[in-house]
Amino acid sequence: MNTFGNIFRLTTFGESHGAAVGGIIDGMPAGVAIDVEYIQRELDRRRPGQSQITTARAEADRVELLSGVMDGVSTGTPIGFIVKNSDQHSNDYDNMRHVFRPSHADYTYNAKYGLRDHRGGGRSSARETIARVVGGAVAMQALRDVCPEIGISAYTSRVGDIEMQGDKMWYDRTVIDANDVRCPDEDAALRMRTLILDVKADGDTIGGVVTAVVRGIPAGLGEPVFGKLHAMLGAAMLGINAAKGFEYGMGFEGCCHRGSEMIDVMESRGEGRSPRFLSNHSGGIQGGISNGEQIVMRVAFKPVATLLREVSTVDDCGNDAALHARGRHDPCVLPRAVPVVEAMAAMTLLDALLMNRTVRI
Amino acid sequence: MNTFGNIFRLTTFGESHGAAVGGIIDGMPAGVAIDVEYIQRELDRRRPGQSQITTARAEADRVELLSGVMDGVSTGTPIGFIVKNSDQHSNDYDNMRHVFRPSHADYTYNAKYGLRDHRGGGRSSARETIARVVGGAVAMQALRDVCPEIGISAYTSRVGDIEMQGDKMWYDRTVIDANDVRCPDEDAALRMRTLILDVKADGDTIGGVVTAVVRGIPAGLGEPVFGKLHAMLGAAMLGINAAKGFEYGMGFEGCCHRGSEMIDVMESRGEGRSPRFLSNHSGGIQGGISNGEQIVMRVAFKPVATLLREVSTVDDCGNDAALHARGRHDPCVLPRAVPVVEAMAAMTLLDALLMNRTVRI
Amino acid sequence: MNTFGNIFRLTTFGESHGAAVGGIIDGMPAGVAIDVEYIQRELDRRRPGQSQITTARAEADRVELLSGVMDGVSTGTPIGFIVKNSDQHSNDYDNMRHVFRPSHADYTYNAKYGLRDHRGGGRSSARETIARVVGGAVAMQALRDVCPEIGISAYTSRVGDIEMQGDKMWYDRTVIDANDVRCPDEDAALRMRTLILDVKADGDTIGGVVTAVVRGIPAGLGEPVFGKLHAMLGAAMLGINAAKGFEYGMGFEGCCHRGSEMIDVMESRGEGRSPRFLSNHSGGIQGGISNGEQIVMRVAFKPVATLLREVSTVDDCGNDAALHARGRHDPCVLPRAVPVVEAMAAMTLLDALLMNRTVRI
Amino acid sequence: MNTFGNIFRLTTFGESHGAAVGGIIDGMPAGVAIDVEYIQRELDRRRPGQSQITTARAEADRVELLSGVMDGVSTGTPIGFIVKNSDQHSNDYDNMRHVFRPSHADYTYNAKYGLRDHRGGGRSSARETIARVVGGAVAMQALRDVCPEIGISAYTSRVGDIEMQGDKMWYDRTVIDANDVRCPDEDAALRMRTLILDVKADGDTIGGVVTAVVRGIPAGLGEPVFGKLHAMLGAAMLGINAAKGFEYGMGFEGCCHRGSEMIDVMESRGEGRSPRFLSNHSGGIQGGISNGEQIVMRVAFKPVATLLREVSTVDDCGNDAALHARGRHDPCVLPRAVPVVEAMAAMTLLDALLMNRTVRI
Repeated sequence: MNTFGNIFRLTTFGESHGAAVGGIIDGMPAGVAIDVEYIQRELDRRRPGQSQITTARAEADRVELLSGVMDGVSTGTPIGFIVKNSDQHSNDYDNMRHVFRPSHADYTYNAKYGLRDHRGGGRSSARETIARVVGGAVAMQALRDVCPEIGISAYTSRVGDIEMQGDKMWYDRTVIDANDVRCPDEDAALRMRTLILDVKADGDTIGGVVTAVVRGIPAGLGEPVFGKLHAMLGAAMLGINAAKGFEYGMGFEGCCHRGSEMIDVMESRGEGRSPRFLSNHSGGIQGGISNGEQIVMRVAFKPVATLLREVSTVDDCGNDAALHARGRHDPCVLPRAVPVVEAMAAMTLLDALLMNRTVRI
Repeated sequence: MNTFGNIFRLTTFGESHGAAVGGIIDGMPAGVAIDVEYIQRELDRRRPGQSQITTARAEADRVELLSGVMDGVSTGTPIGFIVKNSDQHSNDYDNMRHVFRPSHADYTYNAKYGLRDHRGGGRSSARETIARVVGGAVAMQALRDVCPEIGISAYTSRVGDIEMQGDKMWYDRTVIDANDVRCPDEDAALRMRTLILDVKADGDTIGGVVTAVVRGIPAGLGEPVFGKLHAMLGAAMLGINAAKGFEYGMGFEGCCHRGSEMIDVMESRGEGRSPRFLSNHSGGIQGGISNGEQIVMRVAFKPVATLLREVSTVDDCGNDAALHARGRHDPCVLPRAVPVVEAMAAMTLLDALLMNRTVRI
Repeated sequence: MNTFGNIFRLTTFGESHGAAVGGIIDGMPAGVAIDVEYIQRELDRRRPGQSQITTARAEADRVELLSGVMDGVSTGTPIGFIVKNSDQHSNDYDNMRHVFRPSHADYTYNAKYGLRDHRGGGRSSARETIARVVGGAVAMQALRDVCPEIGISAYTSRVGDIEMQGDKMWYDRTVIDANDVRCPDEDAALRMRTLILDVKADGDTIGGVVTAVVRGIPAGLGEPVFGKLHAMLGAAMLGINAAKGFEYGMGFEGCCHRGSEMIDVMESRGEGRSPRFLSNHSGGIQGGISNGEQIVMRVAFKPVATLLREVSTVDDCGNDAALHARGRHDPCVLPRAVPVVEAMAAMTLLDALLMNRTVRI
Repeated sequence: MNTFGNIFRLTTFGESHGAAVGGIIDGMPAGVAIDVEYIQRELDRRRPGQSQITTARAEADRVELLSGVMDGVSTGTPIGFIVKNSDQHSNDYDNMRHVFRPSHADYTYNAKYGLRDHRGGGRSSARETIARVVGGAVAMQALRDVCPEIGISAYTSRVGDIEMQGDKMWYDRTVIDANDVRCPDEDAALRMRTLILDVKADGDTIGGVVTAVVRGIPAGLGEPVFGKLHAMLGAAMLGINAAKGFEYGMGFEGCCHRGSEMIDVMESRGEGRSPRFLSNHSGGIQGGISNGEQIVMRVAFKPVATLLREVSTVDDCGNDAALHARGRHDPCVLPRAVPVVEAMAAMTLLDALLMNRTVRI
């Protein structure tokens, strides 16, 4: 299924080496001012070729909106958009036509569909996330109209075994984008950068963790049973290429502590006012519903599976084969995953916010 | 939304202190022999009052199937079922009518709906998971007809800071159910049990991790973009009460390693045969699609928020308040979460398997 | 699929000769006073055995709400309900175990599922509409809270070749229920009644048309492309057993006229006020969206296929067979279809109204 | 909502006077040969400017597939496509910026969204049906792979009060396309053509009925409760612009007859073989499930609301106004509706066929 969301919905299409990638945003509320340059700036943060530590594929990635906006305002009708592919080196992939790259989607696409587009990973390419960033940037513009205080702050909090200081806190984007790792701890960022360049020099890759903190979300969002807000956020994040884990609030670590250490005690701010939470081990979500505190999530991304060295594998007849990847690849996806995480959070939250308008008469 | 799944779908209803909990299973394929006693045995594993380390609420939890089965065989029509509530001590909750239990869903339900059923947590009670276990037990019977080798093995792999030896492996249920912690490492189980009784004696609670391993699943399941198999499994697991994190395969830990350490090299088993995977860091899922290896997941569950001691909080007018929970509560949800994790896995996999029938002509 | 609706959703279960029929209403807004006796009265209008012109099956059809309502008010959680089956004469159907009743769902259920519950039509029995009436009665209570002027008036407008005078107009229920045909034209009603009793005496059956008129609906409901309001209403009505056609506004007849005769000219009621429509050929819906005028629909119901006389047919081995139906059957479904049409309209409109809350920021 | 279907799904975007219209086809099975020229030929049948009796807007309407097809075969990934708009006379609509055309979607879009794209009807333009024809042509290619005997025959059966002889029968496309009315009764077609030219000369318009007959569909398609096959077909057809009614099989007319006249008696073709139906009053669907006979439907289309003469109306401030439409318009939509009806039938049937693969184990 290539559709995400319930009320606010993104449907996407496109392969790495096709004519274009794109999508349709449905359920965008009418009357929102749409700033195309804002969408483009978000896309530019995801764009390949930004820095030494990302892939050298050079794509302009210009978004074209084809519908749903008139005189700079959303009309409530679907927003179709495309981003043309340009810098395709399809020949780089000729040696992969019949050979499965290990730990990629090659073998499994073949198992599922009986065939696959081998050029640049086809549909399993990270270029598919372009449409997500467009969708997220559109969603963000609606969210800001409803929740003026909203902010989504995602950043690289871990690369390999290097962990930042001050994880799970809010940072301004200027701090995050101050370095090309997108880690707000400058010192850790430097060491992460060195590590990424080292693994790159080895033809190797490295994984890590992106943290996302959302503020300015009202209490009450999320469906409390199967559509718990963190389950929707988890599905959104786990749907990003290379994601291997999701946690929120206390996460895996907090679960080795006692309840008495992990409950978030509330105290009065005065009669008739919403309470103050003295801690946020819940990560802003209780019983699957937002409580108005910051939503804190962490997403683990695996090291990219494409190594620029020879690996042994099998071909689509079941014979042993060797593969030496060419092409242009990220040694570490974390910096470019940051805007994708933000986009998925924005779409999920707008969807939850719209759904929440229907629960009271 | 109280419906789970796309083709195989479970819709549930019921509050802790209402007349019954139950659900409707839709999309169950016709022609499957339905063993009601098997469903009941699965429910019995989830039942309260099983042992010293679980809540003392004594519910028989007998399932009644009301439709969809004739002469012991599924007919393809929806299976309605109910499980009556009996051992309700609603008065235990009188002091919570206007007071929010910290880190429960009380405050957030109120924020969402403007009112809430305070008795036993209402809809946010873990009794809601009864319907999931029934759904999972029904799904399992269809799965076995299609995949005779299928098995789902969930167990408690961590409680507090006690971790089992040999996590992420397959264990038979006889080994898992040999102790009431449901941990297949007997030595760790003993220490976990002691820890649970200790925290219980303190009126405190403790969290941990459930691991689930699935074998016998064919390659090809999962929708590779937004419906990645692990995203669906993640949403399923994160939708269980008290879940705080989900990871699969290499998980958070593996993401601090290099790509060269984490790729799953394939080698030939002979032309025309499916390959052998030399490792399973992918956790049985590549590009969002199953590869035929064991699916390995871990789910973090927080310590229960209900402490049997006085806690300070606020009431629904926004004033400070104190609360001393009575009622009967689990000091640790892990042992009873095990069958719920299995059920969610079974339903997700059957749904993926049915959806997969439509992708080739 | 046994779920109806998008936000307000009804999922149903149950066979004619099982333990019960029932359903789960999900997406009911919180805070609506729920009058169970009102629901029961609506059910009583659908109940078999009401009069000489309906089936003699004597079912009390008492609804039990199992969840989702506390202190007489909806809580926003799903409302599970059951209606027990009691007056089952399963033996009446023994001769149908292997024989397909012509123009029933027997042959097609077998073709689809490979088996079927032959007792009373199993799932294809009109008893399935019980759950629809409950769902509609619940929806109506929410609609009234939002649109105090709302009213849904359905009635029998044609039986066989007898057509009422004054079709497509609004009538109060007291006028409609003044006769057991539920036709507000007393003279036509008398002739319809005679016709029904005549065909009944022949062991035959007769079809006709139910008209439904809705007033008090605001402009703006309906999704203008695939979810046009009349497409949703059409799907709702065509999903009722025995429905063969749906039209709204000018319908089939109006389509033989010219545009100049069929446009609904508007005139001003004064600046800043909504316009007056001088006619309602649109039937209250333009471009798939309600315009605030009365919604006018007509639904054709075929003559019941069960004849109380011998018919020739085939059995499930493909051999010729003869069948003489016993059991208790309606000679004409129209009078009992009236409350079902109203229920489907109510659910569709509440769903559209809730969805409409998300289209503007 | 701008998505149609459950498994095979079409999502569309685009306004009359935007850059392009287009869509995304999701759920197309992998491995189907895709003939782009076939899609284009179907589009050409819907194209404006085909003949004297259709609008003079001259659009090439060339489809571009952007993804989902490799080496002429579907890959199972979504098929994105666009059709550029070219012959836009947006200035023709300047006088409609603030004035509501009667019986169009102008007033209702404004009521729903608070604003609207007034140029050429914006999203409510019939250009939206382009995407449907593309979707239908793609679906048809999958259907033919699965059901080699399948054929969908739609034609104009009535214009104004002129009815064809031999309605509800199957006709080859060569017979249907032999005249520009697309009516297989040559004599009626001539009279219809004259009528259309007459109303056009008056600046008026005329409506009518399209009949569709489907053959070669296996028994067993359709979900028997809310997703009855005819309810899905009805929703599909009623979602086409200007549709006012839908009926199948005996339809409205048949419902004035007795059951004994309307049952479809079966007789044996020999043991173990599917039966012969002696009549087809059921229209190929019984209990919501196909029975293998021809599916017979009729769809009523209203006369186009745009008259090329002055009409009185109101503006968006609520004041009286007069409007004299310019622009280029169809005096009768029937001929161009024919390929749209076929497309909706093809998509609905493929969707039902794919869903049906999941109902047996």
